[in-house]
Amino acid sequence: MIILGVDPGTAITGYGVVEYLGNRFRPLAYSCIRTTPELDLPRRLLVIHQEITALIREFQPNQVAVEELFFNRNTTTALAVGQARGAVLLACAQAELPVFEYTPLQVKQAVVGYGRAEKQQVQAMVKAILNLPGVPKPDDVADALALAICHAHSNYSLLGRMS
Amino acid sequence: MIILGVDPGTAITGYGVVEYLGNRFRPLAYSCIRTTPELDLPRRLLVIHQEITALIREFQPNQVAVEELFFNRNTTTALAVGQARGAVLLACAQAELPVFEYTPLQVKQAVVGYGRAEKQQVQAMVKAILNLPGVPKPDDVADALALAICHAHSNYSLLGRMS
Repeated sequence: MIILGVDPGTAITGYGVVEYLGNRFRPLAYSCIRTTPELDLPRRLLVIHQEITALIREFQPNQVAVEELFFNRNTTTALAVGQARGAVLLACAQAELPVFEYTPLQVKQAVVGYGRAEKQQVQAMVKAILNLPGVPKPDDVADALALAICHAHSNYSLLGRMS
Repeated sequence: MIILGVDPGTAITGYGVVEYLGNRFRPLAYSCIRTTPELDLPRRLLVIHQEITALIREFQPNQVAVEELFFNRNTTTALAVGQARGAVLLACAQAELPVFEYTPLQVKQAVVGYGRAEKQQVQAMVKAILNLPGVPKPDDVADALALAICHAHSNYSLLGRMS
């Protein structure tokens, strides 16, 4: 099973591709897609969509995990993240990949073992579980890998499937 | 000049294609893309993207007009609209079409003549300007046509170009 975790954003979209076989993880690729504000918004979305499409072609993931989003107040952020997320989800739909959503609570629970873990604890566990040389930077990359681990630990349950 | 106006939404995306030549308008197509909640979100975005791409291929618009969005409180709505908007903007970027944004105030000013016009007044003016048999339904279609008219009246100013 190859899982693609994605943490979408207009400026930085983190991603992590991990293989999960016999209870063991192997990181295949993890980095982020950066777009500059010099591009207009449609072109930034184009870059995100192209890069995710290229990743899917190269690593042939079976399933995709993204964060289930809740925003408290900042609607400007919600709109911006929504647009980047739309470009990512579209690339997944075009590749006919099922997408699963997890809340931050579920990710912390799955990666650290309890839902109120600090960001640093999640990042340390991501590094340990995947046997990485260091904590992946920026945070968006670690978040994307944590989502992929969370999905693997959920036993690919259909419960988290996006509706 | 052929202008595509779009009012994006996950359930209903309104669109209007108008030709603007020598100060006269000719409506070429206006309707909406509906997606059912039975499809998962990635597939709904796929339908929106496919239909907008097909519209662009058929009518070869030169420019696209969308609403500049402000949300006060409802971040769930902002996220949902953002995702649909992302799918639309991506289709425009793939076709290398410039996208322009207008606030509701600018649209009312351009279509009715003053910025605090009621929705019904905007719809009546859209019907009159385009010489339509009736007010386009649902509201999303009238809104999309109003955006296209607003863009034509702005003399395709680069001011509104999306950044």
